Amino acid sequence: MFFASDTGSGAAPEVMAALLRANEGYARSYGADPLTARSRELIREIFEAPEAEVHLVATGTAANALALGLLAPPWGAIFCHDHAHIQEDECGAPEFFTHGAKLVPVPGPHGRMAPGALRRALEIAAAGGVHGVQPGAVSITNVTEAGTLHSPAQIAALAAEARAFGLPVHLDGARFANAVAGGNASPADLSWRAGVDVLSLGGTKNGCLGVEAVVIFDPAEAGPGKSWEFELRRKRGGHLFSKHRFLAAQMAAWLEDGLWLRLAAQSNRAAAALAGGLARIDDVTLRHPVEANILFPEWRAGRHETLRAAGAQYHAHDPAPGTPTPDHGATREGARLVTSWCTSAEEIEAFLALFAA
Amino acid sequence: MFFASDTGSGAAPEVMAALLRANEGYARSYGADPLTARSRELIREIFEAPEAEVHLVATGTAANALALGLLAPPWGAIFCHDHAHIQEDECGAPEFFTHGAKLVPVPGPHGRMAPGALRRALEIAAAGGVHGVQPGAVSITNVTEAGTLHSPAQIAALAAEARAFGLPVHLDGARFANAVAGGNASPADLSWRAGVDVLSLGGTKNGCLGVEAVVIFDPAEAGPGKSWEFELRRKRGGHLFSKHRFLAAQMAAWLEDGLWLRLAAQSNRAAAALAGGLARIDDVTLRHPVEANILFPEWRAGRHETLRAAGAQYHAHDPAPGTPTPDHGATREGARLVTSWCTSAEEIEAFLALFAA
Amino acid sequence: MFFASDTGSGAAPEVMAALLRANEGYARSYGADPLTARSRELIREIFEAPEAEVHLVATGTAANALALGLLAPPWGAIFCHDHAHIQEDECGAPEFFTHGAKLVPVPGPHGRMAPGALRRALEIAAAGGVHGVQPGAVSITNVTEAGTLHSPAQIAALAAEARAFGLPVHLDGARFANAVAGGNASPADLSWRAGVDVLSLGGTKNGCLGVEAVVIFDPAEAGPGKSWEFELRRKRGGHLFSKHRFLAAQMAAWLEDGLWLRLAAQSNRAAAALAGGLARIDDVTLRHPVEANILFPEWRAGRHETLRAAGAQYHAHDPAPGTPTPDHGATREGARLVTSWCTSAEEIEAFLALFAA
Amino acid sequence: MFFASDTGSGAAPEVMAALLRANEGYARSYGADPLTARSRELIREIFEAPEAEVHLVATGTAANALALGLLAPPWGAIFCHDHAHIQEDECGAPEFFTHGAKLVPVPGPHGRMAPGALRRALEIAAAGGVHGVQPGAVSITNVTEAGTLHSPAQIAALAAEARAFGLPVHLDGARFANAVAGGNASPADLSWRAGVDVLSLGGTKNGCLGVEAVVIFDPAEAGPGKSWEFELRRKRGGHLFSKHRFLAAQMAAWLEDGLWLRLAAQSNRAAAALAGGLARIDDVTLRHPVEANILFPEWRAGRHETLRAAGAQYHAHDPAPGTPTPDHGATREGARLVTSWCTSAEEIEAFLALFAA
Repeated sequence: MFFASDTGSGAAPEVMAALLRANEGYARSYGADPLTARSRELIREIFEAPEAEVHLVATGTAANALALGLLAPPWGAIFCHDHAHIQEDECGAPEFFTHGAKLVPVPGPHGRMAPGALRRALEIAAAGGVHGVQPGAVSITNVTEAGTLHSPAQIAALAAEARAFGLPVHLDGARFANAVAGGNASPADLSWRAGVDVLSLGGTKNGCLGVEAVVIFDPAEAGPGKSWEFELRRKRGGHLFSKHRFLAAQMAAWLEDGLWLRLAAQSNRAAAALAGGLARIDDVTLRHPVEANILFPEWRAGRHETLRAAGAQYHAHDPAPGTPTPDHGATREGARLVTSWCTSAEEIEAFLALFAA
Repeated sequence: MFFASDTGSGAAPEVMAALLRANEGYARSYGADPLTARSRELIREIFEAPEAEVHLVATGTAANALALGLLAPPWGAIFCHDHAHIQEDECGAPEFFTHGAKLVPVPGPHGRMAPGALRRALEIAAAGGVHGVQPGAVSITNVTEAGTLHSPAQIAALAAEARAFGLPVHLDGARFANAVAGGNASPADLSWRAGVDVLSLGGTKNGCLGVEAVVIFDPAEAGPGKSWEFELRRKRGGHLFSKHRFLAAQMAAWLEDGLWLRLAAQSNRAAAALAGGLARIDDVTLRHPVEANILFPEWRAGRHETLRAAGAQYHAHDPAPGTPTPDHGATREGARLVTSWCTSAEEIEAFLALFAA
Repeated sequence: MFFASDTGSGAAPEVMAALLRANEGYARSYGADPLTARSRELIREIFEAPEAEVHLVATGTAANALALGLLAPPWGAIFCHDHAHIQEDECGAPEFFTHGAKLVPVPGPHGRMAPGALRRALEIAAAGGVHGVQPGAVSITNVTEAGTLHSPAQIAALAAEARAFGLPVHLDGARFANAVAGGNASPADLSWRAGVDVLSLGGTKNGCLGVEAVVIFDPAEAGPGKSWEFELRRKRGGHLFSKHRFLAAQMAAWLEDGLWLRLAAQSNRAAAALAGGLARIDDVTLRHPVEANILFPEWRAGRHETLRAAGAQYHAHDPAPGTPTPDHGATREGARLVTSWCTSAEEIEAFLALFAA
Repeated sequence: MFFASDTGSGAAPEVMAALLRANEGYARSYGADPLTARSRELIREIFEAPEAEVHLVATGTAANALALGLLAPPWGAIFCHDHAHIQEDECGAPEFFTHGAKLVPVPGPHGRMAPGALRRALEIAAAGGVHGVQPGAVSITNVTEAGTLHSPAQIAALAAEARAFGLPVHLDGARFANAVAGGNASPADLSWRAGVDVLSLGGTKNGCLGVEAVVIFDPAEAGPGKSWEFELRRKRGGHLFSKHRFLAAQMAAWLEDGLWLRLAAQSNRAAAALAGGLARIDDVTLRHPVEANILFPEWRAGRHETLRAAGAQYHAHDPAPGTPTPDHGATREGARLVTSWCTSAEEIEAFLALFAA
């Protein structure tokens, strides 16, 4: 009963097998190997973006922070949801890699920035003159931190606000596979066709050991030399792997034959099953719609103790300490449950059974 | 009728005279001159802080940003009012000088952080573990950006929250002279006795050409080498003046014989007179109490045009573009009026007379 | 015949096997897993340093730059050999992670700083006052970029210079395994006993996929909170792996039962065999003594073409373009050959045979 | 007998008078005042550069570091003389404002980079690929730190090397007035006509209190938005003065009617007189030609004590501690003498008379 995080799961067998194959013989270092070329080719095909530049790194924080460093100047404002991962969970990595840009939190329900709130935040920043930070970039997350999805239209609406102020759009796709698997839209629809300039495409949470691709969809539009600038930023950030084949092998295997979407679909189905089961339990409510592989249930206080004693692993997720909690008083408590590609039906059943007791 | 900013005024005659005197003969560079020593001595006396370290710079942004760089690490959170100058008006200077710290805006009425809101923000940051930025420093502003004052007790309440999390306290005193002149508390009461560790003491807005003192009240407590570290940061920031006597001459003349408080009191009296006059005009309301030298009046729409046509200089100050304005609809407009040491009774009368028309 | 780099080799079978084992089941993220604990324990044992703090990252650049960020302030000077990897091959990563420290190149024969030259550089920096960068840290490399070793006494001599100026000592041990395997000194003798405070211990070049340990030998002496600070810097740099077990599995397997030293010894033996063979060829000279797994042969011009046509892979290594080349004129050319744990006797023989032709 | 630095002198009477005049009445803040416009106009006229953008700051370090931040990326190499002020005397300000660029020292006699040495350094950097810092900018100093001049042809030769690698050229003109006064070339000949893109034009050392102009000669070529970017960098660096008229008043008065060149000529003449007198003293030699207002005499050991006892103020200037001193052994000692616009004939005579004793 492991629902603490999708990063607690291992790698898919296909990925491990590819890693073993990649280990044979010598390979040129730093990305000049055939597997790196293959992973680039796959991304271009899957995203219908033959000009896209693709660079691999090993962590989602690196992917996001390097991408933002490419897009926003040190005196820039980066607009993101007020609970975005880049705002709350990366220990200031975006500030570090941008050399001090300011993240501007934009509110919105269920993990999505409200377009109107984004527009107002952009207007305020644009009006600041030399005394304020300048509008720099917009960063959207899909799957959101609330476990919800953005439709292509929702991304396009946010991107339109960004465009109106001349800003580039970044998409944090740490769980992009779950977003594609969870909706009816293609990878292209959910990215460049909706106005995304740079995507962090995450493999780690979905069956890899540790690999993310930063995809620059239109290097020409991004500006001359932007792809090379990314490479310099990556090296300077310590994120260029010498034995690069081991990053590339993961990414290529993960993308081949739709494995990435199969793994994500398994993960989403597990979440749906869990949500369905929880919905049948009297005292359980869900804080956000379950659209991918993350659930935020709340239940009567005291269950944490029981569930954990029985071996369930997950994080409590009450509102931050000290904030008012109008929706659940002393008698309620919340959790964050995350499923993964290897969550089993047995785990779900066992977990749900604990609520019957 | 100049109410655009207290930085639109010149320097007081006493300060200019001191500058002329300072210009005689040779002087050692970089602060090794007698005037620098004298300005340090004066600050120690006035603040009853014989151990305080004093460093001069030429701008308020430099004073604040260097002070914050000293107090907060790159991965730190700096807690300040959500309309603090460091948050809204310094183009990311605190982020630059701290190498990427994150400013956490804390709400509160009339320009003052609410202690409870500060505590909640601190609790959230402290709970973040390695994934979040760490509590770094608290920065208070007095006079606030809303033109209001903090009492010693109010500063102490905020400082107590900071102390509970082990954080140092910075005070942005760009208008500290107005704060002292406007209240019944001594410089010491409004700074170190209330828990302030480092003060930005502003001369520029109150009758100098351009000089601010950064006062480290207890270098021993601040940490070994912190004063020397400040000097290195100042040099590295390009803020160490070679002809340092010209900064020191201003600061010393401004502090001698209470000139700084006389100038600030003039400025505050002018604001009080302006506020008194505006209070007698039917359609005028004040957004914040007038406690120092800044006023935020609102009036029926259309007055801007009349006032400016008659030669009044000031900044409109409506809520930021796009934000909801429940308190004054299409028929209201707002302004920010700032008086200074050289605002004349004639200017005030002439301005008020425009409302009669 | 692959001698381009030891990073062109794959991972040792034992390491791959450990990775497969590590993939079973769930594991807690971010280093809270048993393999991470095991790798820490192994390093403490092997280095006879029970108090040492150990943090894993995936690249050598990250290990070095994060370590230097911990040791030197932004206004610090970092003293290193003028051909050190941190000076020439990391695209400014040390400058990035230190927020702008200055690397001061120190000359010395065969890749080793001359202690006298280090002392002079330290004296100059220490004399600079507020106008110069301050002495910050000393960084030694072992195996050096010239393929030579430092003895414990040589490290101690450099560390003594550092100590005389109160500076901490970093050791770039990207090939530390080769250094231990190549000499008669223990890991402790080559690190903390000789005065090293922080070690970058490299697994990548010696049979891992991508893992390096940063070892803080005496966290108490390093300063309160330094190990925690490292964790924050690592996270902020995007170098904290969520699926941390995959870093730890490599490191633990590599260190278990002396595998790391066996692999390094194979690599060193291959280099010695290559050097021995080349020594018997008339026109070949070696620029540096061959003490580990890197060789810098020079030969009569024209050989590059023949060797490469026959399939030999290596980098030409003439002096930098434009520099005077008194030691080999138009008729000479140089190479850098690197062996690895998987260099075969057949490769060496085949390569040497090309010289006979 | 004050020869410690030209920053030990005060401001010229004309500059102080202008400051007094500038103090009358209100003025718009942050550079929107007529004196700022006037100083811009004067620089455009004097440099025959009607399109030039001009921004004022208060210190030479700020001017240089902000200019370099504009020209070189964080992963850039900045090529300068190995004793350049930016390399030795600014406590890492260029590294701070560029976010970590690397200064590459280029040797050359008498404070001037040798063009061949610059070319070699550029070639090495350009050959580094993603692993090395990239060629970023070239920075020339005129007057040099050795007190010598560059001719237009010498500047053009260095700029040609920069151009060949696509690099912009910065000129540190802290003593540019002395350079113009000391040669036969116009301001334009010594700057943009010789290939300089951005000039730091120093007023502080030549009769101002503290003001420097950063001149971007061709904003169109510098890149779209570069002038605005400079303004953002200046604000963010804390270098935008609110009471900007006091910077502008100095600069305008200094440039009006050739005052700047008269002051510099006085300073240069004083140096020539001093050099002439020293040349007649048996044991005195000069380390560099005296072409502006700085002298580096050497004399028999023991004179320091006598001269200082008699009241002479200057800095000893032996080679850095610890470096070998083949040219003057235990029996020689060196000094750095700097004259200024207010050095008097009496001071020079009195100083020279001390050698007779």
